[in-house]
Amino acid sequence: MTPDELRILLERVRQGSTPVDAAFVALERLPFSELGYAKVDHHRGLRLGFPEVVLGEGKRSEQIVGIVRRLLESGENVLVTRVSELQAAEVLKELPDLRYGSLARTLSFEHVPVVPAAGPPVAVVTAGTSDIPVAEEALETLRLCAIPAQRVFDVGVAGLHRLLGRLDVLGAAPAVIVIAGMEGALPSVVGGLVGVPVIAVPTSVGYGTAFSGLTALLGMLTSCASGVTVVNIDNGFGAAVAVVRMLRRGGAQ
Amino acid sequence: MTPDELRILLERVRQGSTPVDAAFVALERLPFSELGYAKVDHHRGLRLGFPEVVLGEGKRSEQIVGIVRRLLESGENVLVTRVSELQAAEVLKELPDLRYGSLARTLSFEHVPVVPAAGPPVAVVTAGTSDIPVAEEALETLRLCAIPAQRVFDVGVAGLHRLLGRLDVLGAAPAVIVIAGMEGALPSVVGGLVGVPVIAVPTSVGYGTAFSGLTALLGMLTSCASGVTVVNIDNGFGAAVAVVRMLRRGGAQ
Amino acid sequence: MTPDELRILLERVRQGSTPVDAAFVALERLPFSELGYAKVDHHRGLRLGFPEVVLGEGKRSEQIVGIVRRLLESGENVLVTRVSELQAAEVLKELPDLRYGSLARTLSFEHVPVVPAAGPPVAVVTAGTSDIPVAEEALETLRLCAIPAQRVFDVGVAGLHRLLGRLDVLGAAPAVIVIAGMEGALPSVVGGLVGVPVIAVPTSVGYGTAFSGLTALLGMLTSCASGVTVVNIDNGFGAAVAVVRMLRRGGAQ
Amino acid sequence: MTPDELRILLERVRQGSTPVDAAFVALERLPFSELGYAKVDHHRGLRLGFPEVVLGEGKRSEQIVGIVRRLLESGENVLVTRVSELQAAEVLKELPDLRYGSLARTLSFEHVPVVPAAGPPVAVVTAGTSDIPVAEEALETLRLCAIPAQRVFDVGVAGLHRLLGRLDVLGAAPAVIVIAGMEGALPSVVGGLVGVPVIAVPTSVGYGTAFSGLTALLGMLTSCASGVTVVNIDNGFGAAVAVVRMLRRGGAQ
Amino acid sequence: MTPDELRILLERVRQGSTPVDAAFVALERLPFSELGYAKVDHHRGLRLGFPEVVLGEGKRSEQIVGIVRRLLESGENVLVTRVSELQAAEVLKELPDLRYGSLARTLSFEHVPVVPAAGPPVAVVTAGTSDIPVAEEALETLRLCAIPAQRVFDVGVAGLHRLLGRLDVLGAAPAVIVIAGMEGALPSVVGGLVGVPVIAVPTSVGYGTAFSGLTALLGMLTSCASGVTVVNIDNGFGAAVAVVRMLRRGGAQ
Amino acid sequence: MTPDELRILLERVRQGSTPVDAAFVALERLPFSELGYAKVDHHRGLRLGFPEVVLGEGKRSEQIVGIVRRLLESGENVLVTRVSELQAAEVLKELPDLRYGSLARTLSFEHVPVVPAAGPPVAVVTAGTSDIPVAEEALETLRLCAIPAQRVFDVGVAGLHRLLGRLDVLGAAPAVIVIAGMEGALPSVVGGLVGVPVIAVPTSVGYGTAFSGLTALLGMLTSCASGVTVVNIDNGFGAAVAVVRMLRRGGAQ
Amino acid sequence: MTPDELRILLERVRQGSTPVDAAFVALERLPFSELGYAKVDHHRGLRLGFPEVVLGEGKRSEQIVGIVRRLLESGENVLVTRVSELQAAEVLKELPDLRYGSLARTLSFEHVPVVPAAGPPVAVVTAGTSDIPVAEEALETLRLCAIPAQRVFDVGVAGLHRLLGRLDVLGAAPAVIVIAGMEGALPSVVGGLVGVPVIAVPTSVGYGTAFSGLTALLGMLTSCASGVTVVNIDNGFGAAVAVVRMLRRGGAQ
Amino acid sequence: MTPDELRILLERVRQGSTPVDAAFVALERLPFSELGYAKVDHHRGLRLGFPEVVLGEGKRSEQIVGIVRRLLESGENVLVTRVSELQAAEVLKELPDLRYGSLARTLSFEHVPVVPAAGPPVAVVTAGTSDIPVAEEALETLRLCAIPAQRVFDVGVAGLHRLLGRLDVLGAAPAVIVIAGMEGALPSVVGGLVGVPVIAVPTSVGYGTAFSGLTALLGMLTSCASGVTVVNIDNGFGAAVAVVRMLRRGGAQ
Repeated sequence: MTPDELRILLERVRQGSTPVDAAFVALERLPFSELGYAKVDHHRGLRLGFPEVVLGEGKRSEQIVGIVRRLLESGENVLVTRVSELQAAEVLKELPDLRYGSLARTLSFEHVPVVPAAGPPVAVVTAGTSDIPVAEEALETLRLCAIPAQRVFDVGVAGLHRLLGRLDVLGAAPAVIVIAGMEGALPSVVGGLVGVPVIAVPTSVGYGTAFSGLTALLGMLTSCASGVTVVNIDNGFGAAVAVVRMLRRGGAQ
Repeated sequence: MTPDELRILLERVRQGSTPVDAAFVALERLPFSELGYAKVDHHRGLRLGFPEVVLGEGKRSEQIVGIVRRLLESGENVLVTRVSELQAAEVLKELPDLRYGSLARTLSFEHVPVVPAAGPPVAVVTAGTSDIPVAEEALETLRLCAIPAQRVFDVGVAGLHRLLGRLDVLGAAPAVIVIAGMEGALPSVVGGLVGVPVIAVPTSVGYGTAFSGLTALLGMLTSCASGVTVVNIDNGFGAAVAVVRMLRRGGAQ
Repeated sequence: MTPDELRILLERVRQGSTPVDAAFVALERLPFSELGYAKVDHHRGLRLGFPEVVLGEGKRSEQIVGIVRRLLESGENVLVTRVSELQAAEVLKELPDLRYGSLARTLSFEHVPVVPAAGPPVAVVTAGTSDIPVAEEALETLRLCAIPAQRVFDVGVAGLHRLLGRLDVLGAAPAVIVIAGMEGALPSVVGGLVGVPVIAVPTSVGYGTAFSGLTALLGMLTSCASGVTVVNIDNGFGAAVAVVRMLRRGGAQ
Repeated sequence: MTPDELRILLERVRQGSTPVDAAFVALERLPFSELGYAKVDHHRGLRLGFPEVVLGEGKRSEQIVGIVRRLLESGENVLVTRVSELQAAEVLKELPDLRYGSLARTLSFEHVPVVPAAGPPVAVVTAGTSDIPVAEEALETLRLCAIPAQRVFDVGVAGLHRLLGRLDVLGAAPAVIVIAGMEGALPSVVGGLVGVPVIAVPTSVGYGTAFSGLTALLGMLTSCASGVTVVNIDNGFGAAVAVVRMLRRGGAQ
Repeated sequence: MTPDELRILLERVRQGSTPVDAAFVALERLPFSELGYAKVDHHRGLRLGFPEVVLGEGKRSEQIVGIVRRLLESGENVLVTRVSELQAAEVLKELPDLRYGSLARTLSFEHVPVVPAAGPPVAVVTAGTSDIPVAEEALETLRLCAIPAQRVFDVGVAGLHRLLGRLDVLGAAPAVIVIAGMEGALPSVVGGLVGVPVIAVPTSVGYGTAFSGLTALLGMLTSCASGVTVVNIDNGFGAAVAVVRMLRRGGAQ
Repeated sequence: MTPDELRILLERVRQGSTPVDAAFVALERLPFSELGYAKVDHHRGLRLGFPEVVLGEGKRSEQIVGIVRRLLESGENVLVTRVSELQAAEVLKELPDLRYGSLARTLSFEHVPVVPAAGPPVAVVTAGTSDIPVAEEALETLRLCAIPAQRVFDVGVAGLHRLLGRLDVLGAAPAVIVIAGMEGALPSVVGGLVGVPVIAVPTSVGYGTAFSGLTALLGMLTSCASGVTVVNIDNGFGAAVAVVRMLRRGGAQ
Repeated sequence: MTPDELRILLERVRQGSTPVDAAFVALERLPFSELGYAKVDHHRGLRLGFPEVVLGEGKRSEQIVGIVRRLLESGENVLVTRVSELQAAEVLKELPDLRYGSLARTLSFEHVPVVPAAGPPVAVVTAGTSDIPVAEEALETLRLCAIPAQRVFDVGVAGLHRLLGRLDVLGAAPAVIVIAGMEGALPSVVGGLVGVPVIAVPTSVGYGTAFSGLTALLGMLTSCASGVTVVNIDNGFGAAVAVVRMLRRGGAQ
Repeated sequence: MTPDELRILLERVRQGSTPVDAAFVALERLPFSELGYAKVDHHRGLRLGFPEVVLGEGKRSEQIVGIVRRLLESGENVLVTRVSELQAAEVLKELPDLRYGSLARTLSFEHVPVVPAAGPPVAVVTAGTSDIPVAEEALETLRLCAIPAQRVFDVGVAGLHRLLGRLDVLGAAPAVIVIAGMEGALPSVVGGLVGVPVIAVPTSVGYGTAFSGLTALLGMLTSCASGVTVVNIDNGFGAAVAVVRMLRRGGAQ
């Protein structure tokens, strides 16, 4: 219920066109309708052209199909993340119009192609080639949110000159997503070189003491470069949404 | 060395007013001067009125005094974080003009009082009263960076109505810093209610399975609300600098 | 053996109607029969129509078949938990009358259908759809114990309005089982909203820092809502038995 | 706002005695007032004579004094938990009427002495004498909630006969709180012997591999006795509140 | 109650020489009397001249005094372990006849001096000098159990020749207690050199990755020498009791 | 080289019957020959009829075949532990005379059947049926060492009466191996009931907070029953060898 | 750009043969070219005949093929590490000239066979046979770097005489790589016996408390033998490169 | 006993100038004397002017005094590491000629001042000023071993230009010790820039997720720069000894 709708209802009660009992019923559950409204409003805020996002991992293929169908019927764009090749094959049998990104492990659908907004691109940086799938998940998320982005791949700290050669791109970006596994040192270096927002994504790349991303995660959280923030291991999607939150902030929302 | 300085040097070589040997010496270390320059540039970007920040923890009082003295002489504002009462007393004996915030555990000095910028305030939210010191560290950092901020304290998830009553403040903020110990659930709830950037700070508040902030940290990283980012345990300063990175981004930097 | 039965036996020995040898046999294992009795009594207390429960995980199919056969022969209802699809197929070949719940991963058999007791239902709450298998295990356990229950699914803290719309159900329940993975924040929120017993079940849902349920577990144990209790990760069965212990408490047991 | 108040307000709008604008203002924040109300209602539910509980740990003495003063002025009983001897001394200087339980580490005040309810006592069981402080915290909490309780101390599994001699007390209790450090095996044994609700409290008693209670905690969560639930390490207060939730459930609440 | 006693009792009931009521009383608590008896028997088995052992850590000095007084009055020897210097001073004020071993951190009292049994001594081996307090706790325990023992100190694997020079002592011992901190490698080496029972005690000696004894503990449990068994970190007492269990085994017990 | 041999050698040098150069060669490597000898002696000590034991896990089938062949040729009995069904099938193709115990996961061969020694049997105790494979590994090891043993299975603490009914067997055993997963409480209970050596084996049985045996391990190490010793998770073989060390100790070794 | 090239460029500017604008363009990116140069120089230093090394794990077979093709075209020798049998088969289909070492799990190619340098061989030591694959990875790396090496396998601390018999080889080596799983005690023993550089490699060999190499790792880091250094779990390649760094140090690099 | 001494002894036996009995006594402990010899030889190898090193931590002051006295009497230089200010004061009372380095926390004594060897200095690099104490421990160790060293302090990755400006020093060093706390990223960067041996020392500098050096340790072990080796947390001494092992390698040892 919007403020306007509330005012109209009260006006109708005053005029007698709505009986007190009917108004009572409409209002007694207001808290939750209102909260639902706020929630919807928030959703709208996040979602100017933004797809509904479904976490594919841990869901059965038929559950994914069901959820996606409902979203498509309501006219929304769709993004499903963390979809295995097996899941994708099963879903695509039912919903052949979806697009599967095998690197990003995403399924997506756009009713109308999303056009990237103007402005300098977000930099999506990886330390190594094995971190690319996480980067692609972030990139696909940004793409569906109409946020322009640029790949800066394979610039890990063991070959620093590769990173230093791309500083202009990083310094001009509205935000930098830095994706690294192993010891996860790259965000510290980037955060010391550029003053823009740096969102660090640890990946599960590495073996032994990499501990499936834990070492990269702890390294990033303990970064000696101030103001670097961190998301869950392999969470390219989350990093992209953090960027969406930032860039939408100044908008009409 | 700036591009202009480089061009002038080359011009002088061409004119013969600078011998090749002297130019050689000036240029052979260019990489590092240039990098130093880039670094300074970045610092300048971060530092329009921004104080040099010193981590007090693990430093001897005389070390802090020495570093602060050098900063004061170069005319910079100063912020020292994680300063114990004992350290503060020792430093204040030598540098009585510094101001000690006993809650924030910061020492600071402004040559000229910092005036907050215009615009809606950043919301600094705590789950409980024991989280306030971390919030005050963030607030002092924001204050010295001229970023307006507003306290929203003691709105933890065990008393949800307290939080819901402040949603307007949170939804209007350019960013929200959410500080919580124990199970660290507050950022998930806030991130589900507002679409603005949410930076989560786990605190070491709690006992037993709180594991000195580890539980809150893991909870925040695993948040089911998308796009929440996280900093180190008790790192109010880092969360504030992340906000500075965001808000400076669109500016003159 | 009850005290009355013991007294009767002794009386019969005195009267000569029970020979000493027969009494000796009955009594020589008394310590253990007694303890067994206490145990049986406890079992009976727990088991008014309650099935014997077998943990299927880690057992070979032929072991499950053997145990179930013995139970069926003694006329008891049967519940086998954590049964994989493969195990189920093998067991069902031998015992085709059992029912396999593929979501709950349970095998069960009722000699006579269990009729739910009267009274308000226990609320079984999940944060997300991936938590549903754990909920179904709890529900199947409650069903076989004749305890009425109600599903309140997919009401995680990232969409708080969904939970708030169901508060009436939760507040009226004799107990609430709250099942959540990822950061496990839901029990804290529920525990702050309703005063009834809240039993939290962490699930292994999530990736990266979810650490297979450890993060949810720690979050629940560290809950800022007082009086929330916790069971093992994914232990829907255990949560249901905890409810059985509570609701049987006031009964004839 | 109660349902009755809402109905009266609407009636007044209909009658014209309350203008639409005034009603609008009253209603537009209804969600949160309502939620606040629900929260208060819940509090009332939990709090028939129940004291406000303050966690003393991590608070300054003057903060404790301030909070307790406000509670006393509103006529509520008070319980402060995890209060060190130093804190207690400082608080008692300001509020000499409070009572400090040095074992339980609680400060409390009753405006009118709380009289225990009728019925069989809750059993508060400890494995060893070093677990007693945690037990006393639980007992003091139960006492202020008018719930009768009985001590069953020092009955750890290394001397099983001590426990077996008290089975009658445990089996008759409406709930059993089992408190144990070291390997935390006692709840498994108790849970296998009696069918009543068992709430396990791990304690930080022990050294080396006791890991400050972690080992006891993990053991209790992994208990082979079904339906045992667990709270945070050393959390005697939380276990007591869990019992309050159970026993209040069937009552006038 | 033995089987024979039970048969006699029943015979007497049959003959009328024991009334049913008396038999009932004798039998109704049989489980626990029996268990109690077994327990006492076990205690006696362990305790031929063996002192009651009290864990001092975590107990208040007055508690220690109370327990020791009771033991002294019943004529038993006494051993209190893990007693700090402060605790010792307070206890000795009340009980000046006790002896405090400041290295072993034990308080002990013998009514009649314990005379060591005949036979080859148990070898108590340490890797370094910092492990000696744990060794002394083991030695004091063995001494009070009349088991002869021999010190083999400071023979860690970084100076293997020291160990090899003492192999004769180790190979002749009925059991070897090997105490080591840091990486805890010594038991593997000893276990590979001698075929006698090896009980490994990790100590909290070391820093950094020693993790307060965890590394030594894990190393000992993972020993490539078969048949090495392990006790808790710093648990010299436990290792000694394990030896007592072995050596008493063949005795009159 | 024995002392006597050394004396003879020196005598021969003195007499000139052995040249200095030959004596030099014999003596310069003495340390290692001597050590090798000691080692062989130790092996003989451990190996009166004892098979060479090979850890199958992590070895290729052809490696196992090669090692076993060499052992068979030298006339030794053979025990291979932790052999998967796949490995076993491959090895049995080459060495069809070996016997595979599919529960124990062992391959073994006896040139002459091992006859158990006289005396009371070692008790091999399990908490549940899923712990049986570990028990069978211990039993097979004991069997090949000619040590009599007895199964006491499925007597976990959740059904204490089952354990209490077997106390006579446990109390008469020269040693008890107690095997338990989940919370690993059984050794504490057994250790409190009998005074014989108790060797605890944690197993990886359980899920969630069982953490693949870590919880059972920690519980056993932290046992409140004194003198219980512990081996690696699932290490039935190691527990059996610890018993061999004990029982061989008093023998001819 | 080399110093000489810089000097020539400046000379040309002075002479007017290179215009200022062209020199400006060449120099403005000097930092990164220079750094790139330093990097190349470093590579050259490490790479006198040294192959480019590719980590195969986590890469798709077609990625490996692509990278190797590029390296082959530029005339470099190639080493790919951590290549599974499946990956190897797929790569060999495309690049049949590569050699797959199935123990070492490496793919390699030499344009011209690498000839080992003169001098005493590096000792590559393993505790057990299951550690051999890690050793072979190190050996293959050393081989391609022309560093002579010698195998000293299966000399774990449980059979110390095997190690002592090889001390001459170890003491003469320019460096010793010690590879051990389980408790990882071997480097401590070796480090106490020889004064040459000891590089310890923990392996994931073992089960239970071996924790996939963590226990060996911690043991090695906590070694009581001074100056032992450690690399990642199973990282034979890294240990070999550490040796290359040492031995190249004094060379022409 | 050296080979020469052995040959002389045998010659004397042959000549009759040494009786067989005396030779027997000298030789019967040869294994251990030999081993001792090897050990001494190794010590000598390590110790050309090298002090005996004593770990002060965990030792009582009187123990330190005793050990140092014995060393001084035998004419050796002395180094005691990890000595607290309190310990130092107590030791200096007894041994006022020792020198206490309050930053390095070392006590040392040189009979004759140690003169640094010729050659380029080892670089001792720290990320921050709080890492300096660990560096000073390394430097003091190197100094007493006559190895020249150079400080390169405060060049952490958050200000990369500081490091890049010192590359010449690092590239020319025979070895680089890189000391860093927090995320420990510096060794990866250094290892990617220079080809010399890099020994990484994690420090306990940092808070929260620094976990007392664990994060830095894991990061260093997982370094993406090949051939970096790692020592224990805060172990400056160990890193220095690793360098000694390398540099002595090529020498007369």
